[in-house]
Amino acid sequence: MPSEFALIDRYFRRPARHTVLGVGDDGAIVRPSAGCELVVSTDMLVAGTHFLPNVDPEDLGWKALAVNVSDMAAMGAQPRWALLAAALPAATESWIEKFAQGFFACAEAFGIDIIGGDTTKGPRNLCVTILGEVPLIGNQNQALLRSGAHLYEEIWVSGMPGRAALGLAHLQGRIELTEPALSVCLAAFHRPQPRVELGLALRGLASAAIDVSDGLLADLGHLLEASSLAATLQLAVLPAPGLEREAYLSGGDDYELIFTAPALYHADILTLSAKLALPLTCLGKTEAGPAGQLTVFDAAGVPVEITQRGYDHFA
Amino acid sequence: MPSEFALIDRYFRRPARHTVLGVGDDGAIVRPSAGCELVVSTDMLVAGTHFLPNVDPEDLGWKALAVNVSDMAAMGAQPRWALLAAALPAATESWIEKFAQGFFACAEAFGIDIIGGDTTKGPRNLCVTILGEVPLIGNQNQALLRSGAHLYEEIWVSGMPGRAALGLAHLQGRIELTEPALSVCLAAFHRPQPRVELGLALRGLASAAIDVSDGLLADLGHLLEASSLAATLQLAVLPAPGLEREAYLSGGDDYELIFTAPALYHADILTLSAKLALPLTCLGKTEAGPAGQLTVFDAAGVPVEITQRGYDHFA
Repeated sequence: MPSEFALIDRYFRRPARHTVLGVGDDGAIVRPSAGCELVVSTDMLVAGTHFLPNVDPEDLGWKALAVNVSDMAAMGAQPRWALLAAALPAATESWIEKFAQGFFACAEAFGIDIIGGDTTKGPRNLCVTILGEVPLIGNQNQALLRSGAHLYEEIWVSGMPGRAALGLAHLQGRIELTEPALSVCLAAFHRPQPRVELGLALRGLASAAIDVSDGLLADLGHLLEASSLAATLQLAVLPAPGLEREAYLSGGDDYELIFTAPALYHADILTLSAKLALPLTCLGKTEAGPAGQLTVFDAAGVPVEITQRGYDHFA
Repeated sequence: MPSEFALIDRYFRRPARHTVLGVGDDGAIVRPSAGCELVVSTDMLVAGTHFLPNVDPEDLGWKALAVNVSDMAAMGAQPRWALLAAALPAATESWIEKFAQGFFACAEAFGIDIIGGDTTKGPRNLCVTILGEVPLIGNQNQALLRSGAHLYEEIWVSGMPGRAALGLAHLQGRIELTEPALSVCLAAFHRPQPRVELGLALRGLASAAIDVSDGLLADLGHLLEASSLAATLQLAVLPAPGLEREAYLSGGDDYELIFTAPALYHADILTLSAKLALPLTCLGKTEAGPAGQLTVFDAAGVPVEITQRGYDHFA
C-alpha cells in the first residue's frame, strides 16, 4: 500500500494557476487580489450523516467541494482556493483516485486551485475549506450577507429545491421515483451545481442571500433571523405539487440560493433568470414581525401549518 | 440537549478583533493586511490516531489549534484567523464547554480570531484551518519554506523534541516517567507551545524551516527532500542521552522548529536563543548528496544506523 505521502503526491498535488505556493509545505501561500476582501468557509462531511456509506467516490469528491463552493455563491464571492482534509479508514488507491477525479472536476468547473490538505487514518470524514474573494467598492465589500434583508423586499429562490431530498428518499427506499424525475433527482443529490454565476450576478441586486443546505424554510428562517424580519410566503406560486412541494419547502442538500431584493428589481431578476437559463421564483416577501417568523398561505389565502422546517444534526 | 445552532452560538461565537465578519453567515470575511501574502494550512485530528479517547477536552481544544499555529510558525507567518470543523458523537455540553475553553485559550495566546466553523454528528474528528500573513518585501514574500535550504548551511532545532513522545509512552504504559520529567513530558504532549515568536524572528535569518510533527529525522528528511540536499548530524551535540535520544530523533508531536541557516548567522541565532529563553541546538549541516539522505555520526565519528525516522499514518 502506498504511503500517506505518496498518495498525496500522486492524487492531490496538481499544478496551481493562481497560487504562490501550493500543496507540499507547512502551509500554502496565496496573494489576495488588490481591492478585494477574502471570504472563508469550512464544511465537514461525515459518512452516515452527510453521505451514504456506499456512495460513488467520484460523486462524493464532487459534492465535498461543491457544498463549499455553494457557500461562496451564497456570499456573492468568487471561489479561488480550497484545502481538503480527509480521514479515511484505509488508503484504498482506487477509491482515492476516483474521489480525486470528482473533486478536481469540481475544482476545474469553478476555477479553484487546490492548495493544501491533510490525509489521515480514521472513520471517513472530509473537511473542505474554501477561500473566495469579494471586491471592495470604496471601503465597502460587495458580499451578500444573511443579515442584509430589508422590510417589504421580495424573497426569491433559484432552481427547484427538493430534488436532492427526493433523490435521497428514493435511494433509501422511502419513495419510488420513475424516469425522467429519477435521473434529475439523483443528479441533484449526487452532483449539486453551486450557483456561483448567480451569486456573482446578484451583487448589487440582492440585499441578502443564503444557500439551501438544511431546507428552504429552515434556511430562509436563518436569513430572516439574521435580518430581524418576518416573512410571508405564497404556496400558490410554488412550481411543485404534492410530495414535491413538501420536499421543495423542507428538503435539504440542494444548494440553490435564497435571496431577497427590492421589488424594484423584479424585472431585472427575471431577465437574469433568462440569461442564466435558471428558474428564479419569487415566493413571497419580508414583513415586520418576530425575527424568523414565517407565515405560509395556501392558494385560497389561508395560512397553513408548517411542522418541520429542516434538518438539525443534533435534534 | 441544545441544538447544533444553540451550541455554536453559546461556545464558538465570540467577539472578533481583526475580522470584518465572523461566525454565523455562509462564510467569514477578512481583510488581509496591505503588503502581505496569506499563508493557509489545515490539520485534521482523529480520536485514536492523534489523541487518546480519554483525553481532557480542554487539552484537546488547546492542541487542535496549537498544531495549526505551529504550521504558521514553521512558515514564519503571523497567525491571524482560524476556523474549526468538528464531528462529535453527541452534543455533550460539558465536553464542548471545556474543549472551547482550551481552544480559545490558544486563540487568545496567539492573537487569533476564530471566524467560522461547522459542527456535525459523527466519530470524533477535529479539523482546524488557519490563516496567517507574511509580509512582502518588494515582490518577494518572507515566508520560510521547506525548499529554501542551501548547501553547507547549519541545521538547527528548537527546544527539546521527544518530550511529547515520552509523555505519550508514559500514558500508554510503555515507559514509566518520574517527576520532574513526568510533568514536563505530559505538558509537552498535552499543551504543545507553537514557536511563533521564533518563526517570526527567523525571517531573514533562516533559509528553510519545518515543524516537528512526525519526528525530527522524518521532518528534517522532508525539508532536505524539498531542498534537494543531504545532511550530516552529530549525535555528540544532542542534549539528550539514551531513551531520550531516541525520542529526540524520532518522536513526533513536539511542534518544535527545525531550520537551516548560513553558518554566518551562528552567533545571531545563539543571541536569539538567549532572547527567547529557548534552546536552539545546531545539530549538523546540509551536504551534497541524494535528496533527503541523512548520515548520523556518533561521538566517536562513526556513522550510526537509523531504523525509524518517524510516523506515517498509513504505514
